[in-house]
Amino acid sequence: MSVSSRQAPSASRQPATGPLGGGYDVEKIRADFPILQRVFDGGVPLCYLDSANTSQKPQIVIDTIADHYAHHNANVARAMHHLGEESTAAMEAARDTVASFIGAPSREEIVFTKNASEALNLMANSLGNATGDLRIGPGDEVVVSQMEHHSNIVPWQLMTQRNGATLKWFGITDEGRLDLSNIDELITERTKVVSLTHVSNMLGTINPIAQIADKAHSVGAIVVVDASQAVPQMPYDISTLGADAVAFTGHKCVGPTGVGVLWARYDLLEELPPFLGGGEMIEIVRMEGSTYAAPPHKFEAGTPPIVQIIGLGAALDYLNGIGMQAVADHEKQITAYTLQRLQEVKGLRILGPTTVEDRGGAVSFEIDQLHPHDIGQVLDSYGVAVRGGHHCARPAHERFGVGASTRVSPYIYTTTDEIDTLVDGLQKVKKFFRVD
Amino acid sequence: MSVSSRQAPSASRQPATGPLGGGYDVEKIRADFPILQRVFDGGVPLCYLDSANTSQKPQIVIDTIADHYAHHNANVARAMHHLGEESTAAMEAARDTVASFIGAPSREEIVFTKNASEALNLMANSLGNATGDLRIGPGDEVVVSQMEHHSNIVPWQLMTQRNGATLKWFGITDEGRLDLSNIDELITERTKVVSLTHVSNMLGTINPIAQIADKAHSVGAIVVVDASQAVPQMPYDISTLGADAVAFTGHKCVGPTGVGVLWARYDLLEELPPFLGGGEMIEIVRMEGSTYAAPPHKFEAGTPPIVQIIGLGAALDYLNGIGMQAVADHEKQITAYTLQRLQEVKGLRILGPTTVEDRGGAVSFEIDQLHPHDIGQVLDSYGVAVRGGHHCARPAHERFGVGASTRVSPYIYTTTDEIDTLVDGLQKVKKFFRVD
Repeated sequence: MSVSSRQAPSASRQPATGPLGGGYDVEKIRADFPILQRVFDGGVPLCYLDSANTSQKPQIVIDTIADHYAHHNANVARAMHHLGEESTAAMEAARDTVASFIGAPSREEIVFTKNASEALNLMANSLGNATGDLRIGPGDEVVVSQMEHHSNIVPWQLMTQRNGATLKWFGITDEGRLDLSNIDELITERTKVVSLTHVSNMLGTINPIAQIADKAHSVGAIVVVDASQAVPQMPYDISTLGADAVAFTGHKCVGPTGVGVLWARYDLLEELPPFLGGGEMIEIVRMEGSTYAAPPHKFEAGTPPIVQIIGLGAALDYLNGIGMQAVADHEKQITAYTLQRLQEVKGLRILGPTTVEDRGGAVSFEIDQLHPHDIGQVLDSYGVAVRGGHHCARPAHERFGVGASTRVSPYIYTTTDEIDTLVDGLQKVKKFFRVD
Repeated sequence: MSVSSRQAPSASRQPATGPLGGGYDVEKIRADFPILQRVFDGGVPLCYLDSANTSQKPQIVIDTIADHYAHHNANVARAMHHLGEESTAAMEAARDTVASFIGAPSREEIVFTKNASEALNLMANSLGNATGDLRIGPGDEVVVSQMEHHSNIVPWQLMTQRNGATLKWFGITDEGRLDLSNIDELITERTKVVSLTHVSNMLGTINPIAQIADKAHSVGAIVVVDASQAVPQMPYDISTLGADAVAFTGHKCVGPTGVGVLWARYDLLEELPPFLGGGEMIEIVRMEGSTYAAPPHKFEAGTPPIVQIIGLGAALDYLNGIGMQAVADHEKQITAYTLQRLQEVKGLRILGPTTVEDRGGAVSFEIDQLHPHDIGQVLDSYGVAVRGGHHCARPAHERFGVGASTRVSPYIYTTTDEIDTLVDGLQKVKKFFRVD
């Protein structure tokens, strides 16, 4: 099978009615994911509810990766032979796919990184090393929020500490929403950057990016969005988002590990200094000093994650085959079902919005007298994979007075039966630990 | 097939005598690489001589990657369920494999990056942001060489420019060796870092790292080695190298794209500030400030290239199956044959050592009156894949008064027949362009 003859996902070929209705055939989608057939010792089938941590991969993505290594592998750009041209064409086609998937005005605004963290660090470091208008120094402020993933907190802490700038943050309401009540004190003439998550990986909250971006732009600040949990779940349109830069990762979009994406306005990419130095990001290297390539290559030092980029292209093609509106509808329905069923469990408290309005699919909760690690371990013995811990969002946990929680995160292949298995499992956990 | 039941490469099972003798069965090795069966339009078979750009992948590496995605995929460290444990175990087993492959004293000294460039940028940035003894500022010097790949020049240019430090460099002799005649003027009490390639990706030169490291250590400098071309080609032993940090990449060691390695002394990793911020590299994150995990995790922000790391483990297992001494012996023999046959071509000048002593497998050359791009293009029409250009080593080209060259880089699967095909191709190029 060649790269150009990628099969459309089976889900797009024969739509049928699934348990949640609306023509979404979840069983047909499940058949595309070999890992979902996994049965553990004792005949316990896998019930994978940890997709906010990483999503599973459809066969077409696995096949695209294997096919590329087996038949087309070469380095890109640098190589002018047949294989080099095939590799370059496949990788650059994936750049087109990514640009189109998120509604980017130009393919030249798509920078490939190793993960979303690198994309956010790229922004923090390049802004931290910028000169002129973009310079961030003493007296300047960067605004994040208390519900960020650590990857959208630590890079800004490191940069503001180095530059003598100040880090400020939005708080979280009791309901798990961004607390915008003090936005006028947070975003001021001193604000140089506002960097926020679009969808919280812990609380599930969808934040009003456009509204906050308006405010940020009114004071001349740059708006960075961590869309790691957003892009996999909803139709995404950069052109109406109001952001100046957006980061997300491939492995949460049914794509491979090892590849992330930074989108940023072309003029911003042009103005920012390079982040990593090396091959392919240069124009002319002399020992005395170098000049740099135009974006996006300026930010892609060294051999890129070529085959991972190509795999990400296949992954986004697969999601397009289902249709992102259908993905979003299924996510909403399965999340509504999850929220409803979890609230039947006595002593269970959901951290974050308890209804599906402006909410993504990650549902974190605590249960009276039970530690998340114990919950996770017992659930695992029933084949149920959830995440227990702080989910790389420790400040958001601290806001709710807990050190850890249990998180359920459904995705395109999740069924109501699996949520039932989860809830049955939680009742068994309670029985096991004699908690009423 | 599970990760634990990786097959040994067939090369290790039935040694047989190949064209170069010594029990090295190159045909048996070739059978492990599906891409080497590739035939282009017109029945032209692939003759892949671009392995210093990227190596091809044996089936076992492709299968290991596909198997992991299909049966074991999960995020690592954070996930406590079956799949999470399997993924973590497989990735950490690969860390053991890497440590053992390069003779690292401890697995905790192995940091996974996206490529060698990131590993070198990590060193440049962390040293650039270090405090105390490691601090690099005005009056301090960093020493590189004129034969470095751009990825070992540009990061140090960027860092020394930011910090007001000075970049100096070793020159190159007419023979293509490091010019050590002025080492006492280059490495002085002002020197904080010496960063050198072990094997030149353009000239093929093997540099006397231990000797230079002794000098560097005598003035208290840190020694960084770019081993991207060395680790794939020779038995590698960090413990006798004399370096404080070593970078290399997976895709040149028959491994996947998207993964690189930084080894550094544990105490140095402990002392250096973090590079990228995000999940997994932290100890405690508070909005007011964070503390960091112990190495190597301190330098592995975000979801690592999990499956690429696992694939790299399979790749190094494959090379171990052949035996790195056998790999080195074959490289030496095929390089000697390449040097001998190329020198039969009238008007061809080799850039770099013309004999195999202290020399790796990359052979760059120019031919009177012919442009490397033309040479590459015509060779490609005969299925011969070489690299034409500056090979990300523009200053080394400038040293020899050329802007570009043609590079042949054989590897474990290269046969003398392929070198003959190359030389026949070069004669055809000359005929085509009517050059005598």
